[in-house]
Amino acid sequence: MSGVDYGFLSPIWAGGSATGLAGDAQFVEAMFAVELAWVQVQEENGLCSAADLAAIEAVCDIARYDLNLLAAKTPDGANALIPLLGMMRALLASDGAPASASTALHRGATSQDIIDTALMLLTQHSMAAISRLLQNTAEALAHVASEYRDTVCIARSLTQHALPTTFGYKAACWLSAIMSAAKNLDEVRSQLPLQFGGAVGTLASLEQHLALHPELNVTTAALTAELASRLNLHNPASPWHSNRLPIIQAGSALGSAIAALGTFGADVLTASRPEIGEITEPREAGKGGSSAMPQKQNPVHSVLLRSAALNAPGHVATLFTAAGTAVDERPDGAWHAEWPALRELLRLALGSSEHAATLAKGMNVNTEALARNLKLGGDAVLSERLATVLAPVIEGGKPAIQKLVLESITEGTSLRELLRAQLNQQQVSDEQLTDLLDPAGYLGSAQRFTDNVLAEFSAWEESWQPHS
Amino acid sequence: MSGVDYGFLSPIWAGGSATGLAGDAQFVEAMFAVELAWVQVQEENGLCSAADLAAIEAVCDIARYDLNLLAAKTPDGANALIPLLGMMRALLASDGAPASASTALHRGATSQDIIDTALMLLTQHSMAAISRLLQNTAEALAHVASEYRDTVCIARSLTQHALPTTFGYKAACWLSAIMSAAKNLDEVRSQLPLQFGGAVGTLASLEQHLALHPELNVTTAALTAELASRLNLHNPASPWHSNRLPIIQAGSALGSAIAALGTFGADVLTASRPEIGEITEPREAGKGGSSAMPQKQNPVHSVLLRSAALNAPGHVATLFTAAGTAVDERPDGAWHAEWPALRELLRLALGSSEHAATLAKGMNVNTEALARNLKLGGDAVLSERLATVLAPVIEGGKPAIQKLVLESITEGTSLRELLRAQLNQQQVSDEQLTDLLDPAGYLGSAQRFTDNVLAEFSAWEESWQPHS
Amino acid sequence: MSGVDYGFLSPIWAGGSATGLAGDAQFVEAMFAVELAWVQVQEENGLCSAADLAAIEAVCDIARYDLNLLAAKTPDGANALIPLLGMMRALLASDGAPASASTALHRGATSQDIIDTALMLLTQHSMAAISRLLQNTAEALAHVASEYRDTVCIARSLTQHALPTTFGYKAACWLSAIMSAAKNLDEVRSQLPLQFGGAVGTLASLEQHLALHPELNVTTAALTAELASRLNLHNPASPWHSNRLPIIQAGSALGSAIAALGTFGADVLTASRPEIGEITEPREAGKGGSSAMPQKQNPVHSVLLRSAALNAPGHVATLFTAAGTAVDERPDGAWHAEWPALRELLRLALGSSEHAATLAKGMNVNTEALARNLKLGGDAVLSERLATVLAPVIEGGKPAIQKLVLESITEGTSLRELLRAQLNQQQVSDEQLTDLLDPAGYLGSAQRFTDNVLAEFSAWEESWQPHS
Amino acid sequence: MSGVDYGFLSPIWAGGSATGLAGDAQFVEAMFAVELAWVQVQEENGLCSAADLAAIEAVCDIARYDLNLLAAKTPDGANALIPLLGMMRALLASDGAPASASTALHRGATSQDIIDTALMLLTQHSMAAISRLLQNTAEALAHVASEYRDTVCIARSLTQHALPTTFGYKAACWLSAIMSAAKNLDEVRSQLPLQFGGAVGTLASLEQHLALHPELNVTTAALTAELASRLNLHNPASPWHSNRLPIIQAGSALGSAIAALGTFGADVLTASRPEIGEITEPREAGKGGSSAMPQKQNPVHSVLLRSAALNAPGHVATLFTAAGTAVDERPDGAWHAEWPALRELLRLALGSSEHAATLAKGMNVNTEALARNLKLGGDAVLSERLATVLAPVIEGGKPAIQKLVLESITEGTSLRELLRAQLNQQQVSDEQLTDLLDPAGYLGSAQRFTDNVLAEFSAWEESWQPHS
Repeated sequence: MSGVDYGFLSPIWAGGSATGLAGDAQFVEAMFAVELAWVQVQEENGLCSAADLAAIEAVCDIARYDLNLLAAKTPDGANALIPLLGMMRALLASDGAPASASTALHRGATSQDIIDTALMLLTQHSMAAISRLLQNTAEALAHVASEYRDTVCIARSLTQHALPTTFGYKAACWLSAIMSAAKNLDEVRSQLPLQFGGAVGTLASLEQHLALHPELNVTTAALTAELASRLNLHNPASPWHSNRLPIIQAGSALGSAIAALGTFGADVLTASRPEIGEITEPREAGKGGSSAMPQKQNPVHSVLLRSAALNAPGHVATLFTAAGTAVDERPDGAWHAEWPALRELLRLALGSSEHAATLAKGMNVNTEALARNLKLGGDAVLSERLATVLAPVIEGGKPAIQKLVLESITEGTSLRELLRAQLNQQQVSDEQLTDLLDPAGYLGSAQRFTDNVLAEFSAWEESWQPHS
Repeated sequence: MSGVDYGFLSPIWAGGSATGLAGDAQFVEAMFAVELAWVQVQEENGLCSAADLAAIEAVCDIARYDLNLLAAKTPDGANALIPLLGMMRALLASDGAPASASTALHRGATSQDIIDTALMLLTQHSMAAISRLLQNTAEALAHVASEYRDTVCIARSLTQHALPTTFGYKAACWLSAIMSAAKNLDEVRSQLPLQFGGAVGTLASLEQHLALHPELNVTTAALTAELASRLNLHNPASPWHSNRLPIIQAGSALGSAIAALGTFGADVLTASRPEIGEITEPREAGKGGSSAMPQKQNPVHSVLLRSAALNAPGHVATLFTAAGTAVDERPDGAWHAEWPALRELLRLALGSSEHAATLAKGMNVNTEALARNLKLGGDAVLSERLATVLAPVIEGGKPAIQKLVLESITEGTSLRELLRAQLNQQQVSDEQLTDLLDPAGYLGSAQRFTDNVLAEFSAWEESWQPHS
Repeated sequence: MSGVDYGFLSPIWAGGSATGLAGDAQFVEAMFAVELAWVQVQEENGLCSAADLAAIEAVCDIARYDLNLLAAKTPDGANALIPLLGMMRALLASDGAPASASTALHRGATSQDIIDTALMLLTQHSMAAISRLLQNTAEALAHVASEYRDTVCIARSLTQHALPTTFGYKAACWLSAIMSAAKNLDEVRSQLPLQFGGAVGTLASLEQHLALHPELNVTTAALTAELASRLNLHNPASPWHSNRLPIIQAGSALGSAIAALGTFGADVLTASRPEIGEITEPREAGKGGSSAMPQKQNPVHSVLLRSAALNAPGHVATLFTAAGTAVDERPDGAWHAEWPALRELLRLALGSSEHAATLAKGMNVNTEALARNLKLGGDAVLSERLATVLAPVIEGGKPAIQKLVLESITEGTSLRELLRAQLNQQQVSDEQLTDLLDPAGYLGSAQRFTDNVLAEFSAWEESWQPHS
Repeated sequence: MSGVDYGFLSPIWAGGSATGLAGDAQFVEAMFAVELAWVQVQEENGLCSAADLAAIEAVCDIARYDLNLLAAKTPDGANALIPLLGMMRALLASDGAPASASTALHRGATSQDIIDTALMLLTQHSMAAISRLLQNTAEALAHVASEYRDTVCIARSLTQHALPTTFGYKAACWLSAIMSAAKNLDEVRSQLPLQFGGAVGTLASLEQHLALHPELNVTTAALTAELASRLNLHNPASPWHSNRLPIIQAGSALGSAIAALGTFGADVLTASRPEIGEITEPREAGKGGSSAMPQKQNPVHSVLLRSAALNAPGHVATLFTAAGTAVDERPDGAWHAEWPALRELLRLALGSSEHAATLAKGMNVNTEALARNLKLGGDAVLSERLATVLAPVIEGGKPAIQKLVLESITEGTSLRELLRAQLNQQQVSDEQLTDLLDPAGYLGSAQRFTDNVLAEFSAWEESWQPHS
């Protein structure tokens, strides 16, 4: 038990779906899956017998292995597959399997083939779950964007109140980023490649075996294609033992999703501050509370989204460094550096998308706070509008307006009154002035952009596979 | 002059095309280009006059500005556009331009619109050059892959000799990674988006202007589309002021290219070591030499490729961090953190692709060294093959072969002789043994994979635009 | 001019002291300083003549060089010193200097000696300025901590109101971090080492020269010590050509300072939000304003501090990566990757400490807002205290208190009244209840900790060198 | 079991001492240690009874907890301490402990106090082990440096042969970097601070408790000092809830150690290449072998050192980012982002120092290969020396020597013969020429620097604590 990692230091993914999708046990199972699929392809093509396959199937059972022993042996060859293979062969022997099973197992493959491909499987399974969770998040945000499409609130730039906008448009902006990340992730997921090249990417051993057995009448190209198809992975034009761009692309896609969710979380964190109070996280039993301070409800989902957004970039950088320093037909450390970084990105993305989906579905929008904050800066929040509309009619033009705005702020006098005093009814009637000072009249294209994003969402939603 | 950056600390891009494409002057010019294009669109749609346009055109001339003064004012508003705009308006006034020109300039826009879009232009122009340079590199590597398609050499894993391969396949692996990065870059390049949303992404000011002038009979959507088209940028469904995925995607694509070139450089560095000697860099007059040690020729291109591969990941990480911590309708520092990171990635990618193209075109392959190194490990390099082929015929099977290999290494005796002593002519004839010990007979699919990559290259090459 | 970098994309340092301390021109001047100091040491020890020295002094003048040409030649040898040396020797020749001057110049040195040492000089000069600016910042924050030592305000955890604290203690926490970073920086600054080892760190050429000239009666050890002393750098036990820990330590110290200032900026950003309003940045003419929205005053100093805090970690990571991948007696790219990263950290730290000093001196603390926000959560903010004090006297103990707190929040009723209703005057008198609900009575050690930090500051202040 | 992490993707630390020092179980035990020490301090000062202490001691037993359940509850409050505390109190209740025990447990503390301090304990314990391993590594390298102090070999810069050096000096350079990192680590270790401040760093709750119990006659300052002393941690002037420099400093020290070991590993990787062959890793049974290729012995220790050097910088960057974005009295995600990064640096440093110690002790130096590689470039390797010594005597000076060197390389003729032909016996005798062309005569200060480093090592070694 000692030394194992439950996620106590990673609350973003602890206890979540990452536990069942991207743990070390799942990695071992993915290695079994690759070895087994390869034996299945062999069996179908006459390279081994059904008995060999059955014997190998029987040892592809994680419950039969001492994982602490496997960990202890992992550094010996600098990877876990080498000792796992030894343990598998020992089990085959003790099971009384035919010697041919041991020969068929891992035939022509190298540890990089199995590890790279197992990581692609882990990535594929995790990404499928992430994709669903991003869809859930997007769906919930689309509802928010629709519901609050016309709810006026303040927009902020560089922390300061700037102009009115709508809360729906804010949600649409989160949705837009998350949708973009999800589409990119799906594209990358559909291209995750099989790695199968033997010791140096030439498949020499397998070619030799086929050359010794012309009666099999099959090519390495055909076998590789079948293996890719069986594992539901892309079959690339050539092995990628030293071309690590597939790893970079997976890492970037995961990092993008985490970043898009990080922005959502960051905005919720700001909005959750008691002085702002525009959003509160779902109050769930036992979550976010403080035993010492019962009045306090922490925005834990957003806190965790932010923690992931701060954690992920280091892992992304590691993948780029590893790819850029890869050498030879198998890199001397750069390859190994990729593993924990890619896996941690899977766990962070799983955790982030899970918390984001819960947050998006359950968050409470406080329309009173939206209204209160909108009024906080008074009429001055419309100064840009006033300058545009009134500059042509007021003596002194735009600078005169700006002077009144500053006077209003400095002296605390009503901007409306200052304007009224400067402009006669011909220049601007009371009614016109009231209209001018209505934030709802200065939303620009906020609703149009919201509709654009919602239309994009609907088109995307229609493309979703059932259970995809 | 003081404080400016010539690249003395960045030899990867100093004095190269980055100087004319991604410097601070080019950024200023890109800001002019965006402001000017917007006035052109306005003029075409009646929002301003031809005289306004002409007046603004006249001030969009970098030679008229004191760049040190601009730098001095840059921190005041935390960006360079605010003081530039002030200087532009001052020039308009001193040129005696109509007041309407000053009003048309930057109408409805915010500094983020101009800076984001200017960075997209800088990215587009730099990426176009990078794309050409990657094509040049790929072309040269395709020639290398073809020329040495059948040249046998040693493949290495974890620094050690593993099995035979071909030099052409090595080149094809570099080519495959670079081609993949180039395609990705082109895709990203074609999607670089216009940013145009006004102060908070609602285009409120512009909408207000159009509302005041119904006679113009034009919409913000139409104007935005024209602006995007004029700048040759993608017109997105909504502004992306807080959705920074376009920046991440550009950064990742640049980082991928730098990493793919880094692997190429890393392999050339290894191959350039005097003890290995398989590749030498082009010996150009005045380059790579050491005045103190005239016998020494440094692989400077590869050294620089590696320096870029080590430098880039930090910038990529910064972009992910910035995107994941963006808040509000304009981020309070995260936005600003993107600028130097993205620009430096442009410079690194420009420098890397330039040096890589020179290296790929001019590198010398030393076939004697390839042959010498291949023989270094003796027949033992074919031990995997011997185990596959001879295990069925030798007493003791695969372990017996492995024992002979180890004996041969430990004792320094010829593996061929040891095998000959153990196997009679029926088991394996002299001729068969000679064949078995020929590395050229154990290349597996090396040539097939090379051909696959070259076919992919040809298809890609055909898609190239002239001067693209 | 094209290609040079004024800082338009780095407003944190543009136009600031980084311009005169850490630009490319200063790097060239630092290279001159190292070459010249070495000739001065030689002259003092009879290795060259006063005429040689004078001739070399005359060419150590940046105004005599075409920096664009220097940039163009920089990639040839992968560094700027090699072409600079060529240009210096050409100038010596055209100046009619004795041939011995050319020989004395750079005698026994290698380009790494000059570049590493020049970077240490640049670091030393920049760090001296950063140190002063951090002292200024600390001084201003010490005043704030003293002035508001007893000003009660709300403390927040995970964005939520937690308990009362004092504004002085908040300032003391910023001060504590900045003071710690400054001390660390000074320690690192005092240990910045000379690099002087010749081509491979053995000083072989210089030793040979001294062996040929026994009459000079001087050792390489003595000459090196004099050079270090003249440049005011630490003289290490051995060269550090492949031991890059000095670079890491400098980078970490700079990064720590930027992070400490980043936290200060982050808190000011939060406090600057209009809904919170506890701090406003100094309103300086022409700074932080928005032309379109005159009511808006952006917290530009804090925005820039945050931009630096987000930018720096990528550079720090680059330095660690470079150090960990250094090879041979001069690394093949890892060395080169350090230069722009270290220099940018200097610029970021200069800019950050400059903006922080201005901010700390000029920031306005809004005590009304502090009081208003403190009251925002009502008496519930003291629920922890109530639980501690009243649990022993109320029926039901701590849970009963917590229930009342929640009732008060949910129902909006006064916690004081709820408590009054539950507890009789014996249990808690009106006066006691008033005292209990006074935030000023629940500050714990806030003032003691503030005093501790101020005492540490005073002790540190006394150690400051005049003009250090 | 599912979801837990054995290190299968991190062979650098899998199965090593990190397993027993820095796993999740050890983190839980460290949290127990902090909570328990605090109760012990309370008991000694009369804040709780011996029975309370005994009851709490009984629940501080990891075997009594369901760790999967703890993981499942960890996200609820965004940390593991909150649910752990709940489980501890439930156990106290089921154990029939007095209610006062539950009250004493965690009295006045906040989850940040326990987690930060527990991480400091984890860091302290791990750093103690790392320190010992670095000492072992240094000791072994000091032996290597002594043994090969005078063994001449080739020094390389930018991958190319440069000048002669000694193998002992190479080892001394590794030693110098590792020693510097180890000293820095020990300094940081001795300063690891206690965190103890209560909910917002004011100790308000504890102060309140003491105020209610004047009979205890003890101060929060005294209690805190005792707690620090009991945990063997530094007692800081004030809590550091938002001042994260202690975390940065720990992370930088760990990253420095990993980088110093990375350079050692990188040089061994180069030297292990068959064409170079200067170093081979210890051949241990079952380690580094390849089942398919028995002739192959992989340098696994160095590969793993390199993997750690590539992995660590991302984590270091995360710590700097987190520190620079910390806000309020407890950061909203930045705090949480630190945990996995710091812990992974502990594991990487433990693994690296463990593998480095084994490597340094067991590595084989191949003196034949050193001699062979030294001769590879012929006499030209001494061209710098020839230029220094012969320039004054040969017609044409230094350029004439350089011309001969180039001729020798280009034509393949002996440099000695070319020189002999150009210089008469008066200019240089045969004997003098032989001496001049002896690499052992051109070692400069290599031995002196080696001795300097060894002297520094001896002084350091004397300072080691027994079993420290």
